[in-house]
Amino acid sequence: MTLLLRVLACALLLVPPQLPAADTQSFISEKPYPVANIREPEQHLPVNNVILMIGDGMGIHHLSAAWAANRGRLFIENCPVTGIAKTWCRDKLVTDSAAAGTAMATGTKTLYKRVATCPEGNKLDSLIDKAKDMEKSTGVVVTCELNDATPAAFCANNEKRSDSYGIIGDYPRSRADFIFGGGSKYFTQRPDGRDIFKEMGALGYKIARSWEEAAALPPGKTLAVVAPGNLPPPGKRGAVLRQATLKALETLSRNPRGFFLMVEGSNIDKAAHHGKLAEMMEEIFDFDRTAGTVLEWAARHPGTLVVITADHNTGAFSLSGGNLEKGEITALFSSGNHDGVAVPVYAFGSGSGAFTGIYENTDIFRKIMAAMKGEENKAVPVKKDS
Amino acid sequence: MTLLLRVLACALLLVPPQLPAADTQSFISEKPYPVANIREPEQHLPVNNVILMIGDGMGIHHLSAAWAANRGRLFIENCPVTGIAKTWCRDKLVTDSAAAGTAMATGTKTLYKRVATCPEGNKLDSLIDKAKDMEKSTGVVVTCELNDATPAAFCANNEKRSDSYGIIGDYPRSRADFIFGGGSKYFTQRPDGRDIFKEMGALGYKIARSWEEAAALPPGKTLAVVAPGNLPPPGKRGAVLRQATLKALETLSRNPRGFFLMVEGSNIDKAAHHGKLAEMMEEIFDFDRTAGTVLEWAARHPGTLVVITADHNTGAFSLSGGNLEKGEITALFSSGNHDGVAVPVYAFGSGSGAFTGIYENTDIFRKIMAAMKGEENKAVPVKKDS
Repeated sequence: MTLLLRVLACALLLVPPQLPAADTQSFISEKPYPVANIREPEQHLPVNNVILMIGDGMGIHHLSAAWAANRGRLFIENCPVTGIAKTWCRDKLVTDSAAAGTAMATGTKTLYKRVATCPEGNKLDSLIDKAKDMEKSTGVVVTCELNDATPAAFCANNEKRSDSYGIIGDYPRSRADFIFGGGSKYFTQRPDGRDIFKEMGALGYKIARSWEEAAALPPGKTLAVVAPGNLPPPGKRGAVLRQATLKALETLSRNPRGFFLMVEGSNIDKAAHHGKLAEMMEEIFDFDRTAGTVLEWAARHPGTLVVITADHNTGAFSLSGGNLEKGEITALFSSGNHDGVAVPVYAFGSGSGAFTGIYENTDIFRKIMAAMKGEENKAVPVKKDS
Repeated sequence: MTLLLRVLACALLLVPPQLPAADTQSFISEKPYPVANIREPEQHLPVNNVILMIGDGMGIHHLSAAWAANRGRLFIENCPVTGIAKTWCRDKLVTDSAAAGTAMATGTKTLYKRVATCPEGNKLDSLIDKAKDMEKSTGVVVTCELNDATPAAFCANNEKRSDSYGIIGDYPRSRADFIFGGGSKYFTQRPDGRDIFKEMGALGYKIARSWEEAAALPPGKTLAVVAPGNLPPPGKRGAVLRQATLKALETLSRNPRGFFLMVEGSNIDKAAHHGKLAEMMEEIFDFDRTAGTVLEWAARHPGTLVVITADHNTGAFSLSGGNLEKGEITALFSSGNHDGVAVPVYAFGSGSGAFTGIYENTDIFRKIMAAMKGEENKAVPVKKDS
């Protein structure tokens, strides 16, 4: 049988055909959003506040695609400093979000799938704990389940990222003051019978189960768990990532000793894993607009450091073509997995200068620690962890 | 018929299966090279010398793969400053080397396939011309034919990058003092009857037709064209990129007013276009070792700025797996073309601080100009060309 016949026969057998992983997709952003020029304030104040923003899975390709689709403008471009972070974890060249989140949250390269536990199994303090030790306020705002790897690395300790009930069970002893995300199904009706909402209410947290409830809360310890699982896509959830981030900033900044806040665009990675270009673009746009909200806030509040990065790169994504004027892109996901490429880091505000160069993802922790200790603007030498 | 049966039937019909364009390849670097720590000298001197190194097609993925294969060390990591350059050209989101080379060489976004000519067709001065206007010495060292797009953008003017004879015919009026590369077949036996070697000999250039001949020349105006076409791969050509670069540095640095030198690892792109992983890795290693030679020279010569970047990203290349300890990588080329992603910039030495942030590839020209004019360390504001 000739190859052509075989291919035809195969095509008939497999309708729809099994596309190779690498299929080209097109996307046009019909409603580009305006992007303001935001200037870093004068760096005359030491770092008081740190906002770490993580675009899960958002490598340089993803951002370039979003930049092109939004007609050549992104809020993140307002960051005057860029660096490159290496993402490998202790036992793999290609990390997962758990080990990568742990690296940034705790400064330790750990094993694949571990959250804030070192390779030997000990629990690790995260930037939330470290900031609290400095009497700062603390928070996490994410669009995924709060048991998901990135928020877990900041608020819990577990050798298994898949232990959703165990991770949520750690939140009452987390030292985060403002918590916003999804995953309410793991807070109650648990195998261990605990009711995490009740426990945290008893600890002084105001509990919100929707963004509207969260918005109405007075400033103070806040637990907002607004979806049973991950939050729905931006088209359905609206501007809650920006709104919740701004609420966190307003709440946490009441502390004169400042704050540490982690904000994650959690679902960029999930859309990339599934090769869903339009969904991924909407998630990146939402994350970038949240970055705009954060940068505008930071510009009005000297003494604030903003660091924006990714935990790893997802989907072997490339930008094969497009048209800047039309906001059109053609792109390719050639894998459903992460890859081992280094990711960009973007920095803005007091202490941003320390974030240029090539360094380990664990150095993001070290540089933030140095900034919070008042050692900002001193470059932290790159330390080899291996 | 169940899907499983269909898939099995399809698998039998298609033996071997038609692999998608994206096939995974493996590579182990059997002989990793040692990488020294090279420190930027004190920045007490203004910029006198500028070395611009271009890894053709070498995006962040390519460098991450080389880093992993060389056991987690590269010379380029010695650069304390990194930036991100956007590579789109005037009429396409995905540039070619001609328009991208023109952007860096002349500061103008031009049309696809043009070398140092603007969209309206006028000739553009390159950094070679600009440096010469400042009475600096100048040079280009490449591993491709000298008519190839990148060296052409610095030494010639043409609306068609494919006009090999026309581009080589421009070299006698190029203002480069030290020229090293391939493409001798276009210098003689030309359709126009000119003998470019004779013409350039009459202009005072010493002519070399091999690296050995070039090495033996006294310092002075040098035209070394050491291969009929592109230079052979590193395994065959040996260390000539490093050697020729060092010869250029020794020659050009005799000018007390300093120099501008462009060095290209030209064939990284060509290997990536053909999806040849091992060849590409050898070319990146050769380029990185040349970067090491340049950085060591710059560390010993304060007042030198080194900028290392790529003109674009080739091959939709990703690093799907590997092992840092073994120097093993698995990688994927999912396209034979360029893509539209932004590329990293690495900087070292006097004035390096201006190269962090996100900017246009045309800003590389502007920042180098500012440095050569003694305005180093002042960040050049990002200018929109569109």
